[in-house]
Amino acid sequence: MSQTVTDFEVHDIRFPTSEQLDGSDAMNPDPDYSAAYVVLRTDVPDRTDGPDSGSGGIEGHGFCFTIGRGNEVMAAAIDALRPYLVGRPAPRTAADLAALHRELTHDSQLRWLGPEKGVMHMAAGAVVNAAWDLAAKLAGRPVWEFLAGMTPEELVSLVDFRYLSDALTPDEALAILRAAEPGRAERAARLRAEGYPAYTTSPGWLGYSDDKLVRLAKEAVADGFTQIKLKVGGSLHDDVRRLALARDAVGPGIRIAVDANQRWDVTDAVEWMTALAPYDPHWIEEPTSPDDILGHAAVRAGQPVKVATGEHVANRVVFKQLLQAGAVDFVQIDAARVAGVNENLAILLLAAKYGVPVCPHAGGVGLCELVQHLSMFDYVAVSGSWDNRVIEYVDHLHEHFADPTVIEAGRYTAPSSPGFSARMLPESIAAHRYPEGAVWQARRTEEANR
Amino acid sequence: MSQTVTDFEVHDIRFPTSEQLDGSDAMNPDPDYSAAYVVLRTDVPDRTDGPDSGSGGIEGHGFCFTIGRGNEVMAAAIDALRPYLVGRPAPRTAADLAALHRELTHDSQLRWLGPEKGVMHMAAGAVVNAAWDLAAKLAGRPVWEFLAGMTPEELVSLVDFRYLSDALTPDEALAILRAAEPGRAERAARLRAEGYPAYTTSPGWLGYSDDKLVRLAKEAVADGFTQIKLKVGGSLHDDVRRLALARDAVGPGIRIAVDANQRWDVTDAVEWMTALAPYDPHWIEEPTSPDDILGHAAVRAGQPVKVATGEHVANRVVFKQLLQAGAVDFVQIDAARVAGVNENLAILLLAAKYGVPVCPHAGGVGLCELVQHLSMFDYVAVSGSWDNRVIEYVDHLHEHFADPTVIEAGRYTAPSSPGFSARMLPESIAAHRYPEGAVWQARRTEEANR
Repeated sequence: MSQTVTDFEVHDIRFPTSEQLDGSDAMNPDPDYSAAYVVLRTDVPDRTDGPDSGSGGIEGHGFCFTIGRGNEVMAAAIDALRPYLVGRPAPRTAADLAALHRELTHDSQLRWLGPEKGVMHMAAGAVVNAAWDLAAKLAGRPVWEFLAGMTPEELVSLVDFRYLSDALTPDEALAILRAAEPGRAERAARLRAEGYPAYTTSPGWLGYSDDKLVRLAKEAVADGFTQIKLKVGGSLHDDVRRLALARDAVGPGIRIAVDANQRWDVTDAVEWMTALAPYDPHWIEEPTSPDDILGHAAVRAGQPVKVATGEHVANRVVFKQLLQAGAVDFVQIDAARVAGVNENLAILLLAAKYGVPVCPHAGGVGLCELVQHLSMFDYVAVSGSWDNRVIEYVDHLHEHFADPTVIEAGRYTAPSSPGFSARMLPESIAAHRYPEGAVWQARRTEEANR
Repeated sequence: MSQTVTDFEVHDIRFPTSEQLDGSDAMNPDPDYSAAYVVLRTDVPDRTDGPDSGSGGIEGHGFCFTIGRGNEVMAAAIDALRPYLVGRPAPRTAADLAALHRELTHDSQLRWLGPEKGVMHMAAGAVVNAAWDLAAKLAGRPVWEFLAGMTPEELVSLVDFRYLSDALTPDEALAILRAAEPGRAERAARLRAEGYPAYTTSPGWLGYSDDKLVRLAKEAVADGFTQIKLKVGGSLHDDVRRLALARDAVGPGIRIAVDANQRWDVTDAVEWMTALAPYDPHWIEEPTSPDDILGHAAVRAGQPVKVATGEHVANRVVFKQLLQAGAVDFVQIDAARVAGVNENLAILLLAAKYGVPVCPHAGGVGLCELVQHLSMFDYVAVSGSWDNRVIEYVDHLHEHFADPTVIEAGRYTAPSSPGFSARMLPESIAAHRYPEGAVWQARRTEEANR
């Protein structure tokens, strides 16, 4: 029996979230949360009778998150990577996953479309993550455990150090990982028992009324969250009112982060945050362009609130500079923006080198499901700490996943199912395929009848 | 008679250049030079009996350059922009072109795919440039003249200053343009008489033999070029030999630039260029990642050769920082990497503010044809100077264009035909469409018979 990737399916999946203004912020007024979704089929029999068993072989699932239009472009980009997978051996080991990551990000012709940024890079990330889902299933472990079971040498071999060596060498990475080796088992046990700290953005979307904001903020605290987040950047007058209402609703002991979603130039950010500072915001997220390393450094120096960014940071080279320039207090990795687990491992190591905590971006479609594995691995085997670290949680669209995140008392429960928690339910895929799925057909009929 | 964009055609066009190793360098060993090409059709009658007249209306042509695989992804991205053009009025004025540029780069859903970088941003550039081709044809002028005929206020209105205001304000831009207003007519006349300085990369591709390098270097000098460029970064031993041969062939009075195409980390770049410095290279181009602003600054500080970059710089925000950080001696704009004429105007103004000369990247498919207009406009109406400035010239694939560049005695002749010199010949498009064009059908037949 060979163990081969036999097929590569790509789906354009969209959810009509713009109808509810869930996910609305200063830059993204009407997102339709979407995923360009890839399935790696194999001829490896699924002996677990798990969710993939119907297809005849263990599968790897991965995706990029988008907010609607252009999801078809992402799907085309994922499809361009098909030749690197189909007919090849199913990846199992760190060496296999290192080789695949390098092939996908260094194809000499595809690289021109980035390099290492935007559509083509996110597509590589979706496929790399699908390969990790597959390899972890083959190992019978959730991705966080699969990673945390590798040796420091294996982990270092997964990283592409190109363009990083002025900030982090392989030897330095190895030293960081070796220093965290003692205590891996104890931390894994504690993680399984207690879960990983989370914060929630659900109260704070810009399209919500004041009443809804206050109600949801109080609910968040009652549910055990110790940090919430508000979107800002539409109008300073409104932001002062909303932040004051939220502070009043949750009291002084709860952290309130604010998020401008790239709305400002440097001077705007400094003025706005100086005005919001009396309400004690925990961080200002994405104050300006995610490409503006020097701009973030100027914002950090120019006002009293801590600076966070990363969900739109294109790659490890930009993260490297944000750390070199002292531009951020929190690094916000995203599981599906960079080239998958391998590149996020590089970013976790860079953050550890500079002593900056990683607080991932999540939400969207399935980003919570993916990124929890990376923070949990970081806790067990890289930084060795969850102090001052939280994973974003947004309570949207989890019902479409086979292994949805489980939040208890404001913490992410450690996943125990094999894989990357990436598998979307077949009926959800069928209903939300764009433009032919039933949800979209119904919406067109409704619009035509209006 | 309305004046409307009636149709939007997208073509995936590829040239099998990998067969000759034209275009080979340390990162791009076997490129198939390609263009994702867009045609805006209109119902505006072509009264000039010009090359578009057969189609019944004046057309706008634009494209992105790629090096093969993934060109279909670029084509899909361009196609995603169709709704912004079809059925809309044909753009004519600075106000029309400013509005279109903002719509294409700020679509709240498509923006997620960058933001402002990679595939989606290059697609916006192709469409913006096609709109400029159309508007300049409607005005009956080549793009450089069309731009140089606008008032400083109109030019400032074309620029998106978001994320730039800490380095360049609209008022500062206006002051730069007003300072260059006197003398526009004299400089335009001088440009028409003398042409704009060029340099040639044709001798220096990494795949060429030493004999071919020496022969082509001597030919370049005989043809009137005063600067040539060599690709480096494969092997230091080979680079020393090739640079010594080239220096011997052209003598001390000719500038030899070298180009590493992002091959190095910071330390490698410093060591390599320290070793090549005795042969007096004019600049080191793309020593490292185009995203690495701090890395370029470190390379510039760490060795004696001047630093150039830009062909892969994703947008104006990264160019802003390269200038703020003192990381570059030369800014190398590319006509088709950023969001078209509007964003390149922002970059020309930033370079003028910081007093750094602009020496465009060209070559590929049609990049010489496009970018000559931007340097000529810069000379006439922005920097007001061509001192220490040269446009790259590569003698490939010009025969496929209706208004190819004309080089005389090492200088670009100023274009006089209306538009952006962007129109590819219909027979070239037909023969090179991928995968159905005759050139590709023949290649498949040949491979099958091998």
